[in-house]
Amino acid sequence: MKLILLSGGSGKRLWPLSNDARSKQFLKVLQDKQNENISMVQRVWKQLNEVGLSSSTYIATSKTQVETLYNQLGAEVNLVVEPARRDTFPAIALAASYLFSIEQVDLDEVVAVLPVDPFVHESFFHKITELERVIQLSQADLALIGVKPTYPSSKYGYIVPKVDSEEIFYSTVSHFKEKPNEKEAEKLIYKNALWNCGVFGFKLGYLINLLISKGLPTDYNELINNYNDLPKNSFDYEVVENTKKIVSVEYDGYWKDLGTWNTLTEEMNTSIIGKGIMSEDTKDTHVLNELDIPIACLGVSNLVVAASPDGILVSQKTASPRIKEIIGGFNERPMYEERRWGWYKVMDYCKTDLNEEILTKKVCITTGSNLSYHYHEHRDETWSIIKGEGFIALNDKILPINKGDTFRIPAGTFHAIKASQEIQMIEIQSGPCVIEEDINRLEINWSNIEKKITLV
Amino acid sequence: MKLILLSGGSGKRLWPLSNDARSKQFLKVLQDKQNENISMVQRVWKQLNEVGLSSSTYIATSKTQVETLYNQLGAEVNLVVEPARRDTFPAIALAASYLFSIEQVDLDEVVAVLPVDPFVHESFFHKITELERVIQLSQADLALIGVKPTYPSSKYGYIVPKVDSEEIFYSTVSHFKEKPNEKEAEKLIYKNALWNCGVFGFKLGYLINLLISKGLPTDYNELINNYNDLPKNSFDYEVVENTKKIVSVEYDGYWKDLGTWNTLTEEMNTSIIGKGIMSEDTKDTHVLNELDIPIACLGVSNLVVAASPDGILVSQKTASPRIKEIIGGFNERPMYEERRWGWYKVMDYCKTDLNEEILTKKVCITTGSNLSYHYHEHRDETWSIIKGEGFIALNDKILPINKGDTFRIPAGTFHAIKASQEIQMIEIQSGPCVIEEDINRLEINWSNIEKKITLV
Repeated sequence: MKLILLSGGSGKRLWPLSNDARSKQFLKVLQDKQNENISMVQRVWKQLNEVGLSSSTYIATSKTQVETLYNQLGAEVNLVVEPARRDTFPAIALAASYLFSIEQVDLDEVVAVLPVDPFVHESFFHKITELERVIQLSQADLALIGVKPTYPSSKYGYIVPKVDSEEIFYSTVSHFKEKPNEKEAEKLIYKNALWNCGVFGFKLGYLINLLISKGLPTDYNELINNYNDLPKNSFDYEVVENTKKIVSVEYDGYWKDLGTWNTLTEEMNTSIIGKGIMSEDTKDTHVLNELDIPIACLGVSNLVVAASPDGILVSQKTASPRIKEIIGGFNERPMYEERRWGWYKVMDYCKTDLNEEILTKKVCITTGSNLSYHYHEHRDETWSIIKGEGFIALNDKILPINKGDTFRIPAGTFHAIKASQEIQMIEIQSGPCVIEEDINRLEINWSNIEKKITLV
Repeated sequence: MKLILLSGGSGKRLWPLSNDARSKQFLKVLQDKQNENISMVQRVWKQLNEVGLSSSTYIATSKTQVETLYNQLGAEVNLVVEPARRDTFPAIALAASYLFSIEQVDLDEVVAVLPVDPFVHESFFHKITELERVIQLSQADLALIGVKPTYPSSKYGYIVPKVDSEEIFYSTVSHFKEKPNEKEAEKLIYKNALWNCGVFGFKLGYLINLLISKGLPTDYNELINNYNDLPKNSFDYEVVENTKKIVSVEYDGYWKDLGTWNTLTEEMNTSIIGKGIMSEDTKDTHVLNELDIPIACLGVSNLVVAASPDGILVSQKTASPRIKEIIGGFNERPMYEERRWGWYKVMDYCKTDLNEEILTKKVCITTGSNLSYHYHEHRDETWSIIKGEGFIALNDKILPINKGDTFRIPAGTFHAIKASQEIQMIEIQSGPCVIEEDINRLEINWSNIEKKITLV
């Protein structure tokens, strides 16, 4: 059996901690058994490790998440990287073609697709392994996992079983009902409907045949080259709606979607993450602070206060699902990002009278890591090293660097930096347009950079 | 008649906007008639201008406030600067000696001392001018202004008149009662007691004679040199308690102490200062944001949310007077300061493995201004100019500077900078101990700096 975890896109429902560059699954807002802060992805990965499934797991993701995933889960995690964001059908199709043509997985092997961040008990993953037997038993094309509803929620999708479904290990699915009102939900629960938790199980052959029937390539490299031809559609609409035999398995354990501040804070073991203090009469309030300055709460109750370099949210917990209402107007660049080589944080942005943009960042390159050998077309940079040791590549020279050194890097200059001891520096970018996309990379690997420069 | 405004010390009751370097009177949280944000000091100064009293006014202050006062009120304001912070008696004595020995004010002239930031109607200042006549009429040593109480407050001090006080323009004071409980306050109001609003009127000669009787110098320069001999005591304890004949005048107009967030926000004409947004169902909430990032309020009510580079406060308005309870533990350096030459903001602070401190600031020098010619003993600095034009003095050289230039200034190097066009720069300080106090100034005036260097 293989698992495909879908690492979904950006979302602002957990603004200001989540943004276009940081999806909610990467926020370190949960706590492990040692009370260390971990992200939703890290929590799921620990669980997969514990049930022995992590080595059979592939994460379907986009380019923008690769560095964060390696950073949070380690370099040995299997990634299938979309060349562009489309939707869940293309992402799952690509992962299936990877299993088929690169990993040469047998067409009879069962594959389970699931979100990267379900907040569940470990037994959820045992239930997933049962899908293998259920698919063999039922001969269904698709097997889903449904969660036994705990209340008539109007927020979830429901899997409705056939009335005459009499199997023991699974039910045959009649149809789906998305977000019914409360009254409908009550009726559905009476009919043994389950909350759909977004897990799809199928034999690899089912999806490969589907690709063939749609005239799409089954070879991974071919599919990646024709990725734009894939329908920009969800797996639910493209596949599930057109599948005849679907069964579902009931998971009767803890399951929660931590998609909003009120649901997330219910699962936090601590009321303050980061610098913060609360008066004794502050009640049922959570502070999540990624800034260097303290947050003080005085006499408040039922609030979530979240702060990051992107902004500060002060929300009544019950109001927090409505966050998109008010932050629509904020459309600024991400102010903090984790990368393969470390992290950066934007300290300041301003414009000169000549309409030139100035962006000041603090950049950290972890011990042993390096920035790629690259140049920018439209900006100059000044690097001031405040900490650490290493080497800088500037066009055809490699120089040792130390704390206190400053380097001016005009537009067009190839440059790279390697930290032999963790480096922190202040980077000042200036130019008519300072955007992350203005980067031309020649080489990422430091020893190759050294070779190239030595040859010059 | 002369006025002495007491510009009081630091306070944290309006944290995080007020701090050791920024007293509450300097926060631009009020609005003038054009809806521009102004500080309490600026509001009072406008009122004094309008009633024609500003040129007769002297501000008694400490060194740390000089630059801010010039910056907010203009260079023509009269300041009497204490050599060290002691208490209100020494501050008033110093100002009196200044009027006597430097300004040669007649000993019969009436002086009124008042706080720098009363939130009052203009008629309050007309009432102050009445003190002159009242002192002549009553032959009292001290004349106070009392505000007619609007409710039996337990927060204020009360001026209690003599029972047989039958004058028309003033009352003879029997005694004072500090912060009575509500029941006592009711009784005091019944006896025509007034709230004491901290105004003291007296003939200059009264105070000068008092200095003589205490064996203290009456000459300003002598007093400043012996400032440490002055009793560290308040004017109330040192003078008022020992004065026999005190009268009071009633001011029957608007008067308020904007000392806490709840009282202050009641006087704001706008609910958001700085970057912020509120959902439609947010009620009776004020946002004061000095940060560059937005604050979003969602579904909350009766909150004050205040943010500065020092921290973020989220407080129920009624709880805000208790702020000192929770911020006692925060004892960090001020993160933003206004100066004679512009302003700076701390962007980042960290330590290296070798326990060296690194402080990164954004510094703005306004057009025409300059930093003094100075050096630091314990820190190196790197200046990266991101905006503007001007000149830098480095030891015995003056060089023109432009955007993009970077200067390394090792400890011990004399340096100064002058902005011909507003300069903004990123300053990185590094050393075993980076504190504001590590500064040795040789000269402040730029043309003198030029002369000195040309002579070398």
